[in-house]
Amino acid sequence: MVVSRPCTAAAAFTTNKVVGPAVTVSREHIRSGKAQVLFVNAGNANTCTGRRGLRDTQAICDDIAGQLAVNPRHVLVCSTGIIGHFLPMDKVRRGVADAVEQLSRSPRTATNFAQAILTTDTRMKTSFRQLKLGSATVTLAAAAKGSGMIAPNMATMLAFVTTDACITPAMLNRAFKSAATSTFNKVSVDTHTSTSDTAVVLASGLAGNATISKTGPAYTRFAGVLHNVCDDLARQIAADGEGATCMITVRVTGAASPADAHAAVRAIVDSPLTRCAFHGADPNWGRIISAVGYSGAKFHPDKISCKIADTFVFRAGRPCRFDAAVLSRKMKAREWDVLVDLGAGRFEDFCYTCDLTAGYVKINAHYHT
Amino acid sequence: MVVSRPCTAAAAFTTNKVVGPAVTVSREHIRSGKAQVLFVNAGNANTCTGRRGLRDTQAICDDIAGQLAVNPRHVLVCSTGIIGHFLPMDKVRRGVADAVEQLSRSPRTATNFAQAILTTDTRMKTSFRQLKLGSATVTLAAAAKGSGMIAPNMATMLAFVTTDACITPAMLNRAFKSAATSTFNKVSVDTHTSTSDTAVVLASGLAGNATISKTGPAYTRFAGVLHNVCDDLARQIAADGEGATCMITVRVTGAASPADAHAAVRAIVDSPLTRCAFHGADPNWGRIISAVGYSGAKFHPDKISCKIADTFVFRAGRPCRFDAAVLSRKMKAREWDVLVDLGAGRFEDFCYTCDLTAGYVKINAHYHT
Repeated sequence: MVVSRPCTAAAAFTTNKVVGPAVTVSREHIRSGKAQVLFVNAGNANTCTGRRGLRDTQAICDDIAGQLAVNPRHVLVCSTGIIGHFLPMDKVRRGVADAVEQLSRSPRTATNFAQAILTTDTRMKTSFRQLKLGSATVTLAAAAKGSGMIAPNMATMLAFVTTDACITPAMLNRAFKSAATSTFNKVSVDTHTSTSDTAVVLASGLAGNATISKTGPAYTRFAGVLHNVCDDLARQIAADGEGATCMITVRVTGAASPADAHAAVRAIVDSPLTRCAFHGADPNWGRIISAVGYSGAKFHPDKISCKIADTFVFRAGRPCRFDAAVLSRKMKAREWDVLVDLGAGRFEDFCYTCDLTAGYVKINAHYHT
Repeated sequence: MVVSRPCTAAAAFTTNKVVGPAVTVSREHIRSGKAQVLFVNAGNANTCTGRRGLRDTQAICDDIAGQLAVNPRHVLVCSTGIIGHFLPMDKVRRGVADAVEQLSRSPRTATNFAQAILTTDTRMKTSFRQLKLGSATVTLAAAAKGSGMIAPNMATMLAFVTTDACITPAMLNRAFKSAATSTFNKVSVDTHTSTSDTAVVLASGLAGNATISKTGPAYTRFAGVLHNVCDDLARQIAADGEGATCMITVRVTGAASPADAHAAVRAIVDSPLTRCAFHGADPNWGRIISAVGYSGAKFHPDKISCKIADTFVFRAGRPCRFDAAVLSRKMKAREWDVLVDLGAGRFEDFCYTCDLTAGYVKINAHYHT
């Protein structure tokens, strides 16, 4: 992905302590607050490859900078896939040359990009929004790849947002960090944080709006739309989790602290037991409540409530009567919610997840490195 | 299970904040340091059933105490199974009467007990050891049920150890807590901590050894054998995890703190990705190292090493050459180890786990509460 001029840029990276050189190099490059080219390769994460791996990633930046006459520090790199193997650099160089040749402004080329970054994803993930800022029309267009394994080796999320908004690096960074925290960082398919997760936003400034340089109405509107784009991608990623047949939003309210809300949400979505019940369309609230029970979150057993697909199944510490067959049918929809209220405070949190299926096991067991 | 006289007793219970009345009542009863009868029912945990559930559990104790002429406070109760349903008390009373009728000292009856407590377990889990203390022969005999779901609703571990050793409550408690910490609490099948987990030891004192009332050689030897019995049961439970085809011991050494060692072990065994690779006999060390990477444990990327089934796959931060086909064959054994050395200190920890299979998903998805 190449923009006609250096863009204001912001990015969020994996929190894993083990990272590939693509993350190391991109983290370093993004410090300038500028980027112009995004290079993505799938199938090989180039992680745990030492100095040679780092040199290979730097060589990619230099190669691209030479061919496109851009600053090599304005190139960001994303490599995902198998860990512990060197990049096949001859193939990568040919790939770079091919990609440079195919550069165009056509929608078809944008679709090619969104397709090319996919791995075990079953669907393309894109998002598009526009807003008016003064008389200028600002556009945001984005593509992502999801929690499919690459090779299959690692659940890796990549998300790329482009916009022609005119905005300072500090404001773009602020808006993007806030959006990523409440969208990409709320997706959990399998607990496992990749060594390559990367989300990037590039803002070219070509829309001609008055530069957004401080908080205020223009910032708020732009940040809101940026959030919506990221949220749209995050939901598409969760819905297309490996082997998934449905997307579930798990929300915990009434927590005594943000940390409690987070802990309760994670206990629910990290339990293979709850996610198997989701798969079986089984309104098994016992698994949900017991997960909250070992989460460490504060709650009083007489005040906790749970709703599955808008139906109370447990209220103020007591089981509810409900029609299990009717509720099970609702749980067969492609999207539904689990809501747990702890009755202990005013904080809340949520997570997008999917069901755990035999398909997931098949994808991730029957493969040899 | 009934002993001919009140025994010195110790127990360990689930750390889940949501517990069934069986745990509430047994926790209260064990405070006396004495117990004589153990009542177990499967299929219904009686959890989240409010005051009526609590009264039902107390009624069971009273019923048993009446029939056997024992102190009701010397009855311990374990109920596992579905959450949120009242116990069918007529059926329970008939069960108690039946069980009382069948009481005998025969090995056949002991086997009946070990069989009766099983749920989705595929194998009976028992252990037997003897040791000499002075001229006395001390016997330990134990039975457990494992991380199979009940109903299937909850991975619940129950373990019961009996011995004729003569030992004070304080020393028995000390030995049992220590044994449980390094055995039962090191089993992870699916992250999910039950609301009913209970481990109990009863010591009748009938062996006639000099009472163990302080630390010293006799205590050390008894505690060692008690640990071995619990370890034997814990390994049997992990090996018979739902859908499991193999048992894996994950060990982390060289950690900077006990908390770091624990965090690294849990990240590895809680990842469905690593456990799918175990199932596929795939020596996919990238999943293991990346799990350590997000565990929060301290390590230097150039010092971390990993062995799978006694084969170095990653050493001092570098991938090793190994014959993947040979190693994969070793991983098809029923038991093997994963070893990660963080190279950051002198602490270590371990966990017994099993592979994640389509069988697990099947057992836990296709069931309706």
